[in-house]
Amino acid sequence: MKAEIDGKECDIRAVWFENGKVRMIDQRELPARIVIKDFDDHLEIAEAIRNMTTRGAPSIGATAAYGMCMAALNGKDIQEAARAIKAARPTANDLFYAVDTMLADLAKGMDPVEAADAYAQSMVDKCKAIGKYGGELIKDGMKLMTHCNAGALATVDVGTALAPMRQAWANGKRFFVYASETRPRLQGMQLTAWELNQEGIDHAIIPDGASAYYMSKGVDLIITGADRIAANGDFANKIGTFDKAIVAKHFGIPFYVAAPISTFDFNTKTGADIVIEERSETEVTMVKDIRIAPVGSPAKNPAFDVTPAELVAGFITEKGILKPSEISKVIG
Amino acid sequence: MKAEIDGKECDIRAVWFENGKVRMIDQRELPARIVIKDFDDHLEIAEAIRNMTTRGAPSIGATAAYGMCMAALNGKDIQEAARAIKAARPTANDLFYAVDTMLADLAKGMDPVEAADAYAQSMVDKCKAIGKYGGELIKDGMKLMTHCNAGALATVDVGTALAPMRQAWANGKRFFVYASETRPRLQGMQLTAWELNQEGIDHAIIPDGASAYYMSKGVDLIITGADRIAANGDFANKIGTFDKAIVAKHFGIPFYVAAPISTFDFNTKTGADIVIEERSETEVTMVKDIRIAPVGSPAKNPAFDVTPAELVAGFITEKGILKPSEISKVIG
Repeated sequence: MKAEIDGKECDIRAVWFENGKVRMIDQRELPARIVIKDFDDHLEIAEAIRNMTTRGAPSIGATAAYGMCMAALNGKDIQEAARAIKAARPTANDLFYAVDTMLADLAKGMDPVEAADAYAQSMVDKCKAIGKYGGELIKDGMKLMTHCNAGALATVDVGTALAPMRQAWANGKRFFVYASETRPRLQGMQLTAWELNQEGIDHAIIPDGASAYYMSKGVDLIITGADRIAANGDFANKIGTFDKAIVAKHFGIPFYVAAPISTFDFNTKTGADIVIEERSETEVTMVKDIRIAPVGSPAKNPAFDVTPAELVAGFITEKGILKPSEISKVIG
Repeated sequence: MKAEIDGKECDIRAVWFENGKVRMIDQRELPARIVIKDFDDHLEIAEAIRNMTTRGAPSIGATAAYGMCMAALNGKDIQEAARAIKAARPTANDLFYAVDTMLADLAKGMDPVEAADAYAQSMVDKCKAIGKYGGELIKDGMKLMTHCNAGALATVDVGTALAPMRQAWANGKRFFVYASETRPRLQGMQLTAWELNQEGIDHAIIPDGASAYYMSKGVDLIITGADRIAANGDFANKIGTFDKAIVAKHFGIPFYVAAPISTFDFNTKTGADIVIEERSETEVTMVKDIRIAPVGSPAKNPAFDVTPAELVAGFITEKGILKPSEISKVIG
């Protein structure tokens, strides 16, 4: 992804290996400043996953792979390192998958850096393929909308929902993106708008409740990411996605979901089987250390909602664009 | 409305006249503390409308009436005062209606304070009638949803959307209210939740994007206010109302709009004729003096959206509950 560092335009990843160290963008500091942190200990890397220095399931996976790489380079007990890194976050499937992939690769005698780089690169390659297929949906002069951050920060590089936008813009197409701010944690405002700004893609941040207003005035295409996609095409994504999908249907605007095949979970038959994480109400009621809600008023903070497959025009994957009815044929 | 001031339960209004001054709750200070501000100049009162010391169409109307009252008491040019006060905000019909009512009353030789008090009291009486009619829609055990603040703070006292809830609760009915926080200015979190909390009504604050999530799990009734209602029943209200109305239709949840007859504007044929106020982007991008958005990323901040009449189950007015098709028969 493009990022202006000390006045210079750079091309960086969310996490990478360089000169014997694991380096990552401290995403907690964005958008105020770009801070690159260096790590040479796998336990510190596990802590960086836990404290959300890096976030987004694919970036977490790659960071875990580099954590395993670092443990191997430092001659640590690999099984113990695997347990420590897996314990960093409870729910991200990519985390466990990445650690297990590295355990297998190291057991086969692969070079630790090559193995971790290959893991990260495979994610980036999938995103590029998503960008190629999804980019064809975008025409000159279109107005697009997205929600939360399914960008390069979340996926090592390129992004899922943002991959088609990057690709189309690189191909010379010119369009406009509404990035809804995504309360309570504002990933749309603070990460997606930051990425679009770094890429020079025309955009504006809107409050989440302004979706119908702008859709009624003309939005051509909506693309979001997904955290988990059930076998029938129902999918979990950041809270607020379901509202946008319903409003998009009301206006006849095509709603696409960009995600690698690894996001499809065939053990989950429908959206009804997806358990929604309820996060702390302080994410809603507090800004930094200041309570902004009335004392005595509780808040609810579901992290995700589940959008039914019937509202999805297509899933943009590294194998092409699939209608919900085509999932089982192509992937199953 | 009930308000705990210095540990004592009081019954106060959003704006009133006392000892030669116009007094109002500074709603920008809520919910952290209750600050009462005094005014003795109509231009300062116009500024208090503009800077949202007081807000909500009927409270703006009453404040404008008290502003005209103060101009008259101070021997100012009444026509000039009318122009200055009308220029404070562009969307709320009550503002223009209140100023014109005062112009007519003063022309008839009415006492300025009596005229403004009568205007404010008539609003409170209308809200009580709205509470009586709307309260009958609420049944024991229901889950309700509202947006922004159409409460006592917005309407001098009692409220429009909150009037049925106050009335039903006073009648011993027990129910639950989802108050959506209403970005960017958080009137749902900071004012509606504050009022519900003061009244002891069960409630929770939710992010605006959690509407579909909770409606999918069961909401029985949605009531919002309105800033202006066109002759055909299209209505302007706080940004995010349109999204909720569409999502409510998707789930078959009745969506009611509570507003006095004065909110209907027969000079506005349809919603297409309503001009939407675009407010400063800093309301979205800043929290207090800190920029939370990336430098270089613009934001859009439409204050209202327009919901078409077809999404409205009924308008709860002081003359009863009207279907959109009944507006012209009953009011016209």
